[in-house]
Parts: sequence; structure tokens; C-alpha cells
Amino acid sequence: MDIGTIIGISLGFFAIIGGFLMEGGHVAAVLQPTAAVIVFGGTWAAVIMQFPLGDVARAFKDLRKAVFPPTADLMHVVEEMVKYAQRARKEGVVALETDAESASDPFLAKALRLAVDGSEAKVIRESMEVEMDRMEAEDDIGPKVFDAAGGFAPTIGILGAVLGLIHVMQNLSDPSKLGAGIAVAFVATVYALFAANILYLPLAGRIRSRCKAAHREHELVLTGVIAIVEGENPRIIEDKLKGYVGGKAAASGSAPKAVRKAA
Amino acid sequence: MDIGTIIGISLGFFAIIGGFLMEGGHVAAVLQPTAAVIVFGGTWAAVIMQFPLGDVARAFKDLRKAVFPPTADLMHVVEEMVKYAQRARKEGVVALETDAESASDPFLAKALRLAVDGSEAKVIRESMEVEMDRMEAEDDIGPKVFDAAGGFAPTIGILGAVLGLIHVMQNLSDPSKLGAGIAVAFVATVYALFAANILYLPLAGRIRSRCKAAHREHELVLTGVIAIVEGENPRIIEDKLKGYVGGKAAASGSAPKAVRKAA
Amino acid sequence: MDIGTIIGISLGFFAIIGGFLMEGGHVAAVLQPTAAVIVFGGTWAAVIMQFPLGDVARAFKDLRKAVFPPTADLMHVVEEMVKYAQRARKEGVVALETDAESASDPFLAKALRLAVDGSEAKVIRESMEVEMDRMEAEDDIGPKVFDAAGGFAPTIGILGAVLGLIHVMQNLSDPSKLGAGIAVAFVATVYALFAANILYLPLAGRIRSRCKAAHREHELVLTGVIAIVEGENPRIIEDKLKGYVGGKAAASGSAPKAVRKAA
Amino acid sequence: MDIGTIIGISLGFFAIIGGFLMEGGHVAAVLQPTAAVIVFGGTWAAVIMQFPLGDVARAFKDLRKAVFPPTADLMHVVEEMVKYAQRARKEGVVALETDAESASDPFLAKALRLAVDGSEAKVIRESMEVEMDRMEAEDDIGPKVFDAAGGFAPTIGILGAVLGLIHVMQNLSDPSKLGAGIAVAFVATVYALFAANILYLPLAGRIRSRCKAAHREHELVLTGVIAIVEGENPRIIEDKLKGYVGGKAAASGSAPKAVRKAA
Amino acid sequence: MDIGTIIGISLGFFAIIGGFLMEGGHVAAVLQPTAAVIVFGGTWAAVIMQFPLGDVARAFKDLRKAVFPPTADLMHVVEEMVKYAQRARKEGVVALETDAESASDPFLAKALRLAVDGSEAKVIRESMEVEMDRMEAEDDIGPKVFDAAGGFAPTIGILGAVLGLIHVMQNLSDPSKLGAGIAVAFVATVYALFAANILYLPLAGRIRSRCKAAHREHELVLTGVIAIVEGENPRIIEDKLKGYVGGKAAASGSAPKAVRKAA
Repeated sequence: MDIGTIIGISLGFFAIIGGFLMEGGHVAAVLQPTAAVIVFGGTWAAVIMQFPLGDVARAFKDLRKAVFPPTADLMHVVEEMVKYAQRARKEGVVALETDAESASDPFLAKALRLAVDGSEAKVIRESMEVEMDRMEAEDDIGPKVFDAAGGFAPTIGILGAVLGLIHVMQNLSDPSKLGAGIAVAFVATVYALFAANILYLPLAGRIRSRCKAAHREHELVLTGVIAIVEGENPRIIEDKLKGYVGGKAAASGSAPKAVRKAA
Repeated sequence: MDIGTIIGISLGFFAIIGGFLMEGGHVAAVLQPTAAVIVFGGTWAAVIMQFPLGDVARAFKDLRKAVFPPTADLMHVVEEMVKYAQRARKEGVVALETDAESASDPFLAKALRLAVDGSEAKVIRESMEVEMDRMEAEDDIGPKVFDAAGGFAPTIGILGAVLGLIHVMQNLSDPSKLGAGIAVAFVATVYALFAANILYLPLAGRIRSRCKAAHREHELVLTGVIAIVEGENPRIIEDKLKGYVGGKAAASGSAPKAVRKAA
Repeated sequence: MDIGTIIGISLGFFAIIGGFLMEGGHVAAVLQPTAAVIVFGGTWAAVIMQFPLGDVARAFKDLRKAVFPPTADLMHVVEEMVKYAQRARKEGVVALETDAESASDPFLAKALRLAVDGSEAKVIRESMEVEMDRMEAEDDIGPKVFDAAGGFAPTIGILGAVLGLIHVMQNLSDPSKLGAGIAVAFVATVYALFAANILYLPLAGRIRSRCKAAHREHELVLTGVIAIVEGENPRIIEDKLKGYVGGKAAASGSAPKAVRKAA
Repeated sequence: MDIGTIIGISLGFFAIIGGFLMEGGHVAAVLQPTAAVIVFGGTWAAVIMQFPLGDVARAFKDLRKAVFPPTADLMHVVEEMVKYAQRARKEGVVALETDAESASDPFLAKALRLAVDGSEAKVIRESMEVEMDRMEAEDDIGPKVFDAAGGFAPTIGILGAVLGLIHVMQNLSDPSKLGAGIAVAFVATVYALFAANILYLPLAGRIRSRCKAAHREHELVLTGVIAIVEGENPRIIEDKLKGYVGGKAAASGSAPKAVRKAA
Repeated sequence: MDIGTIIGISLGFFAIIGGFLMEGGHVAAVLQPTAAVIVFGGTWAAVIMQFPLGDVARAFKDLRKAVFPPTADLMHVVEEMVKYAQRARKEGVVALETDAESASDPFLAKALRLAVDGSEAKVIRESMEVEMDRMEAEDDIGPKVFDAAGGFAPTIGILGAVLGLIHVMQNLSDPSKLGAGIAVAFVATVYALFAANILYLPLAGRIRSRCKAAHREHELVLTGVIAIVEGENPRIIEDKLKGYVGGKAAASGSAPKAVRKAA
């Protein structure tokens, strides 16, 4: 499980609940089931009104990506692509047929298969860009759902607070309960702001950045396959693909000696 | 009727009204015809000021799309396009004349007719893109109207609350009615926030996503017809078009055997 | 006069003033000349600071477009363009000289004149796109002025309310006037929200959509003239241009028989 | 000095201060040096934190452009360009060497010099677009600084008000001073809203629109020089460039007779 | 250390704290550890939830760029590029091998090495643009983290204030403590607004503008290397590259005599 998520959510709880307790507040004061019903029910009602049920389900599945992030090793992908380039140079692009079949990533598999089938670079690019556009649109569903939840929540929180205040105002005759009533009304705002700012919006951002990393990998793969089909020198391909990796690999800019020889 | 809409709107009502009742509020307290007049009248007055009447009418017609969503089966469209591609390969593009006439979707019909007429790929793309741009602009009218309503509503709600407070402030002399008066003033805010967040904004998003699905289908059809006119191999066409579909079709990436043979 | 504007503004007045009266408020309570001075003076001061005087004047002239919208009949323009295409086909582009001189729309006139002068399609496109860019920029001045007014108004309304409250707070010693004072302060907010939401912002949107319709017509005309210069078949031109029209014309997609014959 | 700025700022002061006096307020009530220190100090502290000192200085220099706007006569520039085109037609592009040296606008001078040096149209466009991009980025510094000031001011105003209220709340024991204290706290909001809405934001918009006019002129000059280098007919050039001018020149679309003859 | 940062942060402290003291407030009143725990803990919890820990760490490292800005001398880079261009003209592009090895900037080094390796202009552009895109994405991490902190802080401040008010409302029975309690609640808002407006948002803007300067330098270098590979005249290259520099260099537009001769 991603340590950042654990740190983030613990820090959020400790800071906000802890700060409240340090001031002398009691936890019981912020535990209001009616506020929870209004805020969480209202927020997800709005989300379900806006998105198809399948999209909402997908958003919750995407939480896995946020909490257990896949480890992407771009440098490894670059090395794979360079190996393909070297094989294609020596034995022809057709030699990549087995690689196309055994590739674990379906995106890479499809690109290689198109290359093996003898498609032109232009056709490969068009086909794979259709694929990439669709995948990006699909990957953006989860973040959009949580962004929407984070956008609706504060307003629903105000709605809950106003409903609470309406109730309080109608019972002004008993001023001894006034303060407690207003306190209850404010809890809806607390729930909504906490959910939006410590959960929904950060989760949307977190899922989105995980997906962006996957898209960068797809761009790297597509650039590599196109370069292989166009018969570029494996060393030039490696140089170009390292530009996607960053860090020392890009800065050094020179291929390891073994690879240079093979090229 | 779409089950998501039913769930969404029911959840919204139960959560918000239910939460209010759980707190001990009375439904009567939030039934204020004057607040409804100000909020709904004011919101739609602003919308009617901004949009031609025809656009507002169209927005209400578009509600059907949100509540009874058409079922789009992109895989079926891909199969249709592959069939056209195979026929065009064997008998020439002219053989698609009957398909052009019998096509139920006017967009597909126009694209096929242009192909049958012997137009170049470039001319077909230009003509159909003009068509697509116009359809996208028309399809965006409904969502824009509801987005505008969702944008105006909260401010009109505040306007209603301020008008209510003005009335209350002028009658401060009778403090026993003060609380009830403020409660009445707040109801305008409740109506406005509920309408904007549980109805207008989600409906705009829902209609917009339905229309986007239709546009994806048009892009698929146009890509297919262009590929047919350019005489591409039906199998390559199928591969490319499957990129629009997603799910298993795209991942597997391979055409069913029967189709491969035919190609 | 556009019936939508009348309905919109009447509905706005009836809903908001009517709702206030229904609650038992008195019109006198919301007639505050000082609030009007602060809100309207302050808003237009900000607008005049931001825009040249000529732009502000133009915005008020553009109100005509919102209230008395010109009736654009795109289908009629398509028919005109097809007539030109047929004449150019039979008698050459030079035959359009009289049409260029008699055209009532200066945009159409300039495009035809360039065509008659024997300019290449590329030169015509470049020249007319410069023209279109400028016209779009000019047409956007009015909406921008009203958008700015709609953006400044609510903040100036809050400024007015705060100024009112400052005055009230300094006279707390006489609590009997407190409520009335606060009521007066709130009127600035009412004016500002009404002006922004029922007038400025909707008018900006309304003028902008009128101008967009004009730009669509210019795109149609330019596409048509370019196609004529490139010697395209009048029937193909008609098909392409109908894509701009929408509705039944586009859906049917087939030219009326008489035109087909002529082509 | 631009009359619009004078009218705008006077109207702003008269409307807002005047409205306050009409209500019976005293100017002294809104003169609070501490509020001024917090609002103006805090706003510009934030701006100085965000922008290099040179950028802030530039923004204040740019105020000249807003208050004493340069008068741009695009029609005159078109006539100049047409003269150059005619000379280049008769005597060759090299004949423009003296014009390049005597041109007062460095942008025009550089473009002409590149043309005289025999650079290709493509090279001229590339070089001058680098120049235009840089100038646009530089011209946008001033507006960005004032936009930032206009964005920070209201929040700093709230900060000032909250600080004032904290002070008031700690002295609740003396209720007779309560109202006055709150009034003082509100003055920070008044200063901030006035500065943001009547000064910073409108000035940003005003400087930005002055710069846009300069960029239009540069585009006109570049289009003209490119057309000269490509040997286009001076009359066609004039027609194209007039598209940038608008008004009657563009509508008439015909060059004055004298020019036509010369061409 | 950048003098602007020192001036900005000192001005911010003096204006806001000083203004508060001038009003007669006591510093002790705004020193609330619980408010600090809620605001700073909550804000960074949200940030850590949204961004990977490495990104947050990078943001703090980027503070160096804001506080100790690197001094970029674009004119010097232009002179370097012109030297390379002259050497490449006389001795061939291969003569730049030593320059490629000794270049201190890895971006310049990689571009030169690609040129020396005999890559075509197109390949160099593609490879270096991949590199530039990645560097821009990486450089934008720090600003995004601080922008997010600046976006979350005010809402967390309101959350803290509401939590404080809940506590106050539950102890209404002791009115003598009411004012002090509200004052404490407001401190969270003060911390949040100060942190967001005087620290987080300006720092994000400051880091972003430092990075933009670096990107401009990369564009300059890439344009220069491409021009060298395409064998353009060193004097033309100098003219083009000076467009990136601005100030007198661009306005004069003429290369120093010594350079002209060499060309």
C-alpha cells in the first residue's frame, strides 16, 4: 500500500480532529449521523445523477490505483524497445512476431502486431492514437467522478448547514438550545469540507497522475515502434526514448557501451 | 428509464429531506411557495434572457436523452463498417449504394452516399467534418442551458435570501417572529442549491456525456468510410476501428477468424 | 422585438419582485437611490476603467442585436452559393462580377470580388480569414463589456452592503433603527445580483450567440467561394454547404431534383 | 491623458464615496490608516513574492500606456506597406534598404532588413515570430502583475477584516464600542474591493488591450513584408492588409483609384 | 538570496502583523498552536494525499530556485551559439565534438552530440522536444504542489474556523468567554489566508517563472543547433536567436561588426 496515502490520511485526521480536541472540543460534538446522511447522501446523489452507474463503479475500482500504485520502470521499457530495434535490424521486423504474442501489455502487443503485419508507420500511428485517445478518455472517468464529488460536497455541506439553521431558527424560543443547534448545523460543513479536501479532490489528482504515467509509457512505446518500422538506428532510438525517462539516463545521454557495439 | 437517474434523484431526496426530518425538522418548514417563485422564476428568467426560446425548448427535449439513454453498441457499428469494407473490396465502392439508401443513421447515409458518388477522401472528410462540427454545436445547446441554470440558481437563491432578510430586518420590532422569518429566508437558498446540484448541473453533465458517445460513433463511421474509399484492407480497418470500442475487443486486437479469411 | 427578451425580463421582474411582495414586503423597501448610485455607478466606473469609451458605446449599440435579432436564413444563403457555382461552371468565375457588385453583405462581396479578380483559393482564404478574425474580435467587444459588468456588479454590490453596514454599526446606539439600516445595506446586494444575473450576463450570452450565427454564415460563404474557385461540382458544393444548415436539409442530404439536373 | 480613465476613476469615486455620503455616512469613517497598511501592504507583498522586482517596476511603467494611450492608425501603416510593395515591384526588394534604416518602429525595421538581406519568406516569418512571441510575453507582464494584485486584494481585505474582528471580539466586554470596532474591521474590505475592482483589474484589462492593438499592427506588418518578398501584386496586398483595419476600409474593399493605377 | 523574496516576505509580515498591532491588537491573540496544527497539518495532509511523496519533496527543493534564482544571461548563450555556427561553417559540424563534450548544460550537450553524430534536423528536433516536454512536466511539479497547497489552505482555514465555532457554540452558557472563543476560531482563517496568499501561491508563481526562463533558453539552444545543422549563415542565426533575448539586442537587430566579418 502506498505510504503517501497512509501518511496523508493519518496526518489529515490527526491534524483536524487533534486540533479540535486540543481546543477542548469533544469528539461527540462532531459525530452527527444526520449531517453525514445529508452530506454523503447528497453528494453521491448528485454524482450518480451526473454519471452513468458504470462510471461511478469504475471510480471506486480506480481507488486501487491510488492506494496500491503500480510501479512503472520506464528505463526497463526503453531497454525492451532497444532490444526489439536490434532484432528488427538484424532479422527484419517480422522477427518481432513472437515478441508481439508474448508481450504482457496489450498496447505494446497491438503496436508490435501492426508492425509485424507490415503496416506503414502512418497507419500504425493512426491506429494506436485512436487507441490512446480512448484509453485516456476511459482513464479520466475515475478522476472526473471524484472531482465532481469534491465540487458538489461543499455546496451540499452548506445546504446541510442551512437546513440545520432553519431548524434552529424555528426554535428560537428556547435560547438555551440555540448554541448547540447551531453547532450541529455546522457539522455538515465540517464533513463536507473534510471529505472534499482530504479525500475526493486529492484522490482525483492522485488517480489522474497515475494514469498520466501510463500514457507517457504508451507514448514511449509508440515512438519506439514507429522508429523501428522506419528502420532507425537502435542507438538513435535509445537516445530518443531516454528523453522520456529523465533523471541521469537522459542527462548522461550516452548509451551503455554494450548497446553501442551491438548497434 | 435509466436506473441511474432514478437512484440518483431518490437518493438526493431521501438524503436531504430525510436528514432534515431526522434532525426533527418539519417538511412544512421548507415548503415556501414564495421562495419557489423567486428561485425557479428568477433562474429561468435569466436562462430565457440568455438563450433563444428554441434553445430552452431543445434543452427540455434533451432530458429524454438523460432519462431514457439510447443504447449504443459500437462493436456492432464496427462489424457493419467491416462488412461494407469487404463488399467495397470485392465489388467496388459503388456497390454500397443500397447500403447508403437503407442506412438508418443519416450521418452514415450521407458519408456512404458521398463515397458512392466517387468523392475523394479529402472532400468526404471536409464535408462530414462540417456536419460533425454543426451537430456537436447543436448537441451542446441542452447542456449549456442546464449549466447556465445551475450557474444562475445559487445566486438567485442568495438574492431570494437577501430579499427575505430585508423583510425580516424591517420587522425587528417583533423579535418573536425573527427566527421564523430568517428560516423562511433561508429556504430560497435550499431550493436553489438543491436544484443546481441535484438537478441542473448533473443533468447537463449527463446529457453531455450521452452526446459525446454519439460523436465517438460518428468519428468511428467517418474513419471507416475514409478507409474504405482509400481501399485499405478490411482487416486493418477492423483493427483501427476496434480502437474506438475499448474493452476486450481492443485488447485482444485480433479479428475473428471468419473475418480474417474474408479479408 | 425578440419575444424571448420580453418573456425573460418580465418573468425576472415578476418572479423576484412578485415573490418579495408575496412574502409581505413593500416595494418601497427595495427602492434605494443611494444603493443604485453605488451599484450602477461603481459597476460602470470599473467597466469604463477597463475598456475604451468606444467599446462601451459599441456594447450598448449591440443591445439592438440582442433585442431585435436579425433573421438569418442559412438555407437561402446555400441556394445563393449554389446559383453562383452553377453560373461559374457555365460562364466562368468572371461571370460573378455583377453578383460581387450587387451583393448586400460586404463579406460576400469581398470574397466574390477576390474570386473574380482571379486570386488563387489560398490567397482568398488568407485574405478572408484575416477579415473573419478581425470581425470576430470586434463582435466580441460587446459581450466582453457586459461580461465584465456582470463580473464587477456582485462585488460592487458587496462593497455597497459593507459601506451600508459600516454606517449601521456606527449608530448601534439606536437599536430601533438597526434592522432598517441593515435592510437598506442589503438592497445594494439585491440590485447588483439582479443586474448581473437577469441583465448583464444573459445579455452578453445573447449577443455572443447572435454573433456566432453570423460567423457560421461567413464560414459557409468562404467555403462556398473557395469551392467555386476550385471548380468543384455545384451538387457537391451544395451537399457540403448543407452541412452548415442542419435540420432536415442536412439529414435528407439530397439536393432537390431541379438543382441536380442543372449540375 | 485618456479621457476614459479620467471618467472611469471619477465616476468610481463619486458613485461609491458619494453613495456612502448620501446615506449619511462620514468620510472619516472610511479613512483607516491601519486598514490601508494591511490591504495595500499585504497585496503588494504577495505580488512582490510572486514576481521579480523588475516585473513589478515594469507594471507601473505600463500604467503610462493605460493612461496616455498611443494612437495607432492602422490605415496609415497599410498605406506605408503598399508604398513599399510598389517600390519593391518596380525597383526590387533591395530598394527598401533606406526604408529599413529610416523606419521608426524597430519591428518593421528588422523585418525590412531581413527582406533586403534576401532572406526567404519562411526565414523571415520564423525570425519575426520569435520576436513577436517574446514581445507578447513581455507585454503581458504588466497586466499579469495587476491581475495578481486584483486577485490577492480581496482575500487580503478579508484577512484585514478578520484581524479587525479578532480585536473586536476580545473586547466584547465594552459593548458600546462593539459597533464602531466592527465598522473599522469592515473598512479593510472596502479598500480591497475598491482597489481590486476600480483599479487593479480594470487597469490590467486596459493595458492588455493596448498591447493587443500593437500585436495586431505587428501581424499586419509581417503579413505585408512576407507578401512583398513573395512578389504579390500591391493591390492584392492592400486588399489583404485592409482586412486588419476594419470599418469602412474593409467593407468597401476597393483600393483608391490612384493606387490601382500604380499597381 | 533574491532581494525580492526578502522584501516581499518582510513587507507581508510588517503590513499584516503591523496593521494588527496598530489597531491595538496583541500578538498573543494571533498565536494559536491549535489553529496552526489544523491549518498547516490539514493543508499538507491534502497535498500529500494528492501528490506522491517524491513530488512534495521536489517542491521543497525547488524553493531554492525561488529564493536563490540562477542568473540566466541569454545574450551570452546567443554568442556561444554563434561561435559554434562559425566553427561548424568553417570546419564542419563534426568540429563541435569537443564543445559537445565540454558543454556544462546537459541539454546543450545532448543537442550538440546529436548534431555531431550526423542526425538530421528533423530527428534532432523530435529527440530534443521529447526531452523538453519531459523537463517542462518535471519543472511544473513544484509549482503544482504549492498551487494545490494555496488552493486547499483557505478551505482548511474555514474548516478550522467552523470547528472553533462549534466549540464556542456548545459553551454559549458562559457569554463572557464568547468573544474570546470566536477570536480564537478566526485565527485559523488568518493563518490559512496568510499562508496561501503571502507564501504558497506567490512561491508557485515564482518557481514557475524561473522555470519558464530555463525553457526559453532551451528553445533558443534548439533553434540554434537546428540552424547550424541546416547550414544557415551565422549572421542570420544570430539575428534569429536575438529575437529570444529582447531589449536593445533585438531592437538594434544588427550583429556587432566583428561577427559580421567572420560570417
